[in-house]
Amino acid sequence: MSQAVNDFVTVIPAGGVGSRLWPLSQPHRPKFLLDLLGTGATLIQDTVARVLPLSERVVIVTGERHAPGVAAQVPDVPAENLVTEPSPRDSMAAIALAAALIEERWGARVMGSFAADHIIPDAEAFRATVAQAAAAAELGKVVTIGITPTEPSTAFGYIEMGEPLAGEARHVVAFTEKPDAETAAAMLERGGFAWNAGMFVVRTDVLLGHLDRLQPTLAAGVREIAAAWDGDDRAEVLGRVWPTLTKIAIDHAIAEPVAAEGGVAVVPASFEWHDVGDFDSLAELSGAGEGAIAIGREAAVGLVGATGAVVVGGTKPVVVVGVDDAVVVESEEAILVTTRAAAQQVKGAAAALAQG
Amino acid sequence: MSQAVNDFVTVIPAGGVGSRLWPLSQPHRPKFLLDLLGTGATLIQDTVARVLPLSERVVIVTGERHAPGVAAQVPDVPAENLVTEPSPRDSMAAIALAAALIEERWGARVMGSFAADHIIPDAEAFRATVAQAAAAAELGKVVTIGITPTEPSTAFGYIEMGEPLAGEARHVVAFTEKPDAETAAAMLERGGFAWNAGMFVVRTDVLLGHLDRLQPTLAAGVREIAAAWDGDDRAEVLGRVWPTLTKIAIDHAIAEPVAAEGGVAVVPASFEWHDVGDFDSLAELSGAGEGAIAIGREAAVGLVGATGAVVVGGTKPVVVVGVDDAVVVESEEAILVTTRAAAQQVKGAAAALAQG
Repeated sequence: MSQAVNDFVTVIPAGGVGSRLWPLSQPHRPKFLLDLLGTGATLIQDTVARVLPLSERVVIVTGERHAPGVAAQVPDVPAENLVTEPSPRDSMAAIALAAALIEERWGARVMGSFAADHIIPDAEAFRATVAQAAAAAELGKVVTIGITPTEPSTAFGYIEMGEPLAGEARHVVAFTEKPDAETAAAMLERGGFAWNAGMFVVRTDVLLGHLDRLQPTLAAGVREIAAAWDGDDRAEVLGRVWPTLTKIAIDHAIAEPVAAEGGVAVVPASFEWHDVGDFDSLAELSGAGEGAIAIGREAAVGLVGATGAVVVGGTKPVVVVGVDDAVVVESEEAILVTTRAAAQQVKGAAAALAQG
Repeated sequence: MSQAVNDFVTVIPAGGVGSRLWPLSQPHRPKFLLDLLGTGATLIQDTVARVLPLSERVVIVTGERHAPGVAAQVPDVPAENLVTEPSPRDSMAAIALAAALIEERWGARVMGSFAADHIIPDAEAFRATVAQAAAAAELGKVVTIGITPTEPSTAFGYIEMGEPLAGEARHVVAFTEKPDAETAAAMLERGGFAWNAGMFVVRTDVLLGHLDRLQPTLAAGVREIAAAWDGDDRAEVLGRVWPTLTKIAIDHAIAEPVAAEGGVAVVPASFEWHDVGDFDSLAELSGAGEGAIAIGREAAVGLVGATGAVVVGGTKPVVVVGVDDAVVVESEEAILVTTRAAAQQVKGAAAALAQG
């Protein structure tokens, strides 16, 4: 089966430090630049490799600070397709600027927006789903890819799926926020809900058309910047207009209001998908059980009166004594000691050091 | 007050790896060679500095493997006073060999035997107590120094004290093994008991006389080795006799049977004394409380949702998240992660690595 999609352009918004993955993640070394699984490839490298076979072009939108790192890691993406944001203005500005720039350079295209730091082991299944989404996008829909729930997770927003549209695609009734446990269990039992993984496939003209109606100043702003991007005035226009753009997520700016109008579709997919936000989910993804899991390290790990350790990085042998589900992480900068249960609190680690 | 004691010879048995202090302690780097408190001096250096002002001479008995380390750390002790054991044969053989060698070289002396790895912050108070013990030893007693209990500890053997002998010294009724909690509490309430810190002060002729009666082959063996020590036959005699010496602790060989005969005295002392056997006691000694204690390191320590961490060694910042009373130790060889409550189990750490 061919997975190529005619004239498909992938946009990869590469943002977010991933502060619960400290000290692997650092302000200068965000999650998407990490080889989080110790496979030899970073998350953005995996992402680019996953989309390249179906993409005519790949555009990456990232912050100025991370542009050199991105360029070094993904040489297959031409320098002119690396769009650098002067400052973070949330996902709608980043994706809309990419859409406007695509139209300026190459005309209207079907584009897909996929985060730089998600883990999708089955790239072929992913591309087959994107091809389905692209077909629905050709019909003028904003298309999202919904992950079929495997558990009543409270970690994701949900997509309520409606009537069939075309192929695998179905109409979207509504997006819902992250539910409480009871609601999540009820949705799983009732069926017809998918996890919102933040993946959108849409024609650039459709996206920008919605934006013209719903966020007109933001739309005008990104069109002005895109028109100037490849000329002499980029710096002037970017410096003047970018800081004025509305800070809003694409979910709130486009997905939710357009879904209410009946303009959003979803392609349900059952491929494995992970947004590894903390060391607990990294442990789970790495198959942590009773024994010790080592990631990105060679030296031995020993357990005494302890089960289920995850040890990441570092070159010295590590022994955990009497702490269950320990997480020990060593980077060039620092050492973290925590447990899977406390993994969410790692967000405060860098600040604790700054105070200490 | 003068603390000099005429012709007093200090014997320092320097043995015991301290395996619950891994990875600081290693087979090639036993506890007594460690700067355990991060003060800049190792335990044996502190011990020698503590006894030098009251000692005519200092003799150190240690294993062959550790002799170079001892020699390097305590240059004030002449090389000929560094007695090297070919193999460990418990404390009685080590101390008796030192006593016999002292008699061979310098004639009968009052000697004191003090472990190389104990911590006694107030050296003056220690020396004043030893002077009292030496006076009682001149009377022909085996004299021990008993630490006045501050809590109903189950970690030490106890000395039951009897009638006054001379000065501060009292007769010893009996030595008791480490008690259970109930017994320890009863002894503390009743009074008249002291902790046995394994410190003995005795005339060499008295010690060897008791040994002649109670352990005659051991006594004959160390006398034969001592007679040959400074001659050409040392290696031959040592190689032939040393492996045959009875393996027995001085407590069982001398202290307990001689106490039963009325020949042991005790000088009670209230100086602070610590046998830091594990990281829990190191933490306590270092004043660990709600915050983070750093020992032998400069880099910052941060706590998030965690109280009472002890971080030893290493050069990188460490953050502990969600683990109370954590113990994080980095040596050249390895990293240990445990808690104060699990500190006893560290004994198995090196073996766990060997298996892992």
